[in-house]
Amino acid sequence: MLIGWDAEPAMRTAMGEALAGAAIPVYLPDLAPDQRGGAIEAAEAVISFRPRKEFSEAELARLVSVKLLQTLSAGVNQLPFDQMPPDLRIACNAGAYAEPMAEHAMAMALAAAKALIDRHHKLRRMEWDQFTPTKQLRGGVCAILGLGGIGRHIVGLARAFGMRVHAINRSGQTDVPVDFIGTLDDLEAVLRAADVIMVTIGLNRATLGLLDARRLAWTKDDAILVNVARGDIIDEHALYAHLKDHPRFIACLDAWWIEPIHHDEFRLETPLLELANLIGSPHNSAQAPGALIEGARRAAVNVRRLLDGGEPLYVVTAADRP
Amino acid sequence: MLIGWDAEPAMRTAMGEALAGAAIPVYLPDLAPDQRGGAIEAAEAVISFRPRKEFSEAELARLVSVKLLQTLSAGVNQLPFDQMPPDLRIACNAGAYAEPMAEHAMAMALAAAKALIDRHHKLRRMEWDQFTPTKQLRGGVCAILGLGGIGRHIVGLARAFGMRVHAINRSGQTDVPVDFIGTLDDLEAVLRAADVIMVTIGLNRATLGLLDARRLAWTKDDAILVNVARGDIIDEHALYAHLKDHPRFIACLDAWWIEPIHHDEFRLETPLLELANLIGSPHNSAQAPGALIEGARRAAVNVRRLLDGGEPLYVVTAADRP
Repeated sequence: MLIGWDAEPAMRTAMGEALAGAAIPVYLPDLAPDQRGGAIEAAEAVISFRPRKEFSEAELARLVSVKLLQTLSAGVNQLPFDQMPPDLRIACNAGAYAEPMAEHAMAMALAAAKALIDRHHKLRRMEWDQFTPTKQLRGGVCAILGLGGIGRHIVGLARAFGMRVHAINRSGQTDVPVDFIGTLDDLEAVLRAADVIMVTIGLNRATLGLLDARRLAWTKDDAILVNVARGDIIDEHALYAHLKDHPRFIACLDAWWIEPIHHDEFRLETPLLELANLIGSPHNSAQAPGALIEGARRAAVNVRRLLDGGEPLYVVTAADRP
Repeated sequence: MLIGWDAEPAMRTAMGEALAGAAIPVYLPDLAPDQRGGAIEAAEAVISFRPRKEFSEAELARLVSVKLLQTLSAGVNQLPFDQMPPDLRIACNAGAYAEPMAEHAMAMALAAAKALIDRHHKLRRMEWDQFTPTKQLRGGVCAILGLGGIGRHIVGLARAFGMRVHAINRSGQTDVPVDFIGTLDDLEAVLRAADVIMVTIGLNRATLGLLDARRLAWTKDDAILVNVARGDIIDEHALYAHLKDHPRFIACLDAWWIEPIHHDEFRLETPLLELANLIGSPHNSAQAPGALIEGARRAAVNVRRLLDGGEPLYVVTAADRP
């Protein structure tokens, strides 16, 4: 049982407790260089945070007898699929950060609806803009693109705010109480009806560049778009142009295109951050206190299902791959 | 049936429809100077937005045969009680703006919890602060000081976010599902337990300066305080000192001490707006589209109860007076 990164003590405790009696975690950065290869080949399962950084290309190719690669992250788009054995079974950490991310998504949508940042700054300049109406969520439609762990939590919040919920998932079916459920085939109708659009869908071949100029044109002029999933689901240049042309449309981005965790830098191709109708956060929607510790615990619990002879959850399929 | 201010056409339509068949509204600013006195003395009821601006002192004293003064505002602290006949019956517009105000209060609490303004500005400077934890509402305690129309709506929202709710009202009893209900006698315990404190209580003798230095000292170091009621419920100098001494404590103010609508200016006695742990909005929590029209309609509906021979709701008692 191998863990790829130098996890902090609280995470080590959480994973150790989840695996107790089934496996003793070995931390790859704790090993001497000449011990690494053997540990990688002997491991029954691996938990990894950033595989491209934790393993060399040669080491990734040696994950042949590993029965499960479990990610700490909920998404898998950053995995080096082309460098790993093609039949390696991979499980993602779906829903591990759903509660804080749903809160963050609602926080951004509400900040946009209430123009909190604009009004705060006007006040700081002693400018009292009391009677310009703000938006009310009640009575509006919340579109949820991707009804997984985060999306399900957003449904409960949106309904509490008196919104109707129109959701999209792969099957077009759900047991979650929504007012409409469909698939990506229904995207045009869902976007046309939406006052708030929550992007909580996984990044894969079907969703790469999903919100391009053609689809953004289906949205309401004053819609609020929140992306807590992955930057590449939206076309950056198309979004920039759309925001410039539609000043009442507001984009709230927690997920970006080029981020430090995988690209070692934060970079944009457009001056998005100069726009008044853009609210940004640094991909921190999951960063509630202890959230990563809880994520590590859930990852270890899923590995334990395998070690105990069961089936792990959230195994990545061909459709999930980027 | 007299209306004190030059209401916009949509408000006139809403009030006219609510009163249809019972009374024809007369708008005070539409009258010639020599018609005003007679209209004031003949009116069975008056709806007023800002009585001090709509009526002269002499005119206020002439409201002797008026059976009801109905306010457009939910609060009555700004009424010129000392200039009006002492037995004038007054009804406030309690709960008229509850839905948008509850949304605004939650928006501010979430913006504080997720450090949205700070992270947004760091991003605009290309500063990527991803791993500093933000706060999670789930699992925390939401204190609601004043369980009227706004407070009741906040209960539903706070519960959807997985918070426990500890509320305070006058009776210490409620049919709203809360985890604790008490009176101002329980304030210390309620403040000590609270992660988010929502101030939604009316301003009167019992609540003037309620949150002073002694009571603020009962709060958690990292509590979030939201005031959508009236500025004077909090002691401005005590709040400023508390925020300076407790940088993890965040105050979200929609209600201020000296505001344009009643004082013709926005003014502070302290440099509150320079603090990083203060989020401000210009008393616009009720300003959803159409909210004032709906407020006018509700005010007229309450007057109609009287005109139809019934009892108006929300009649102001001695305890409500400032």
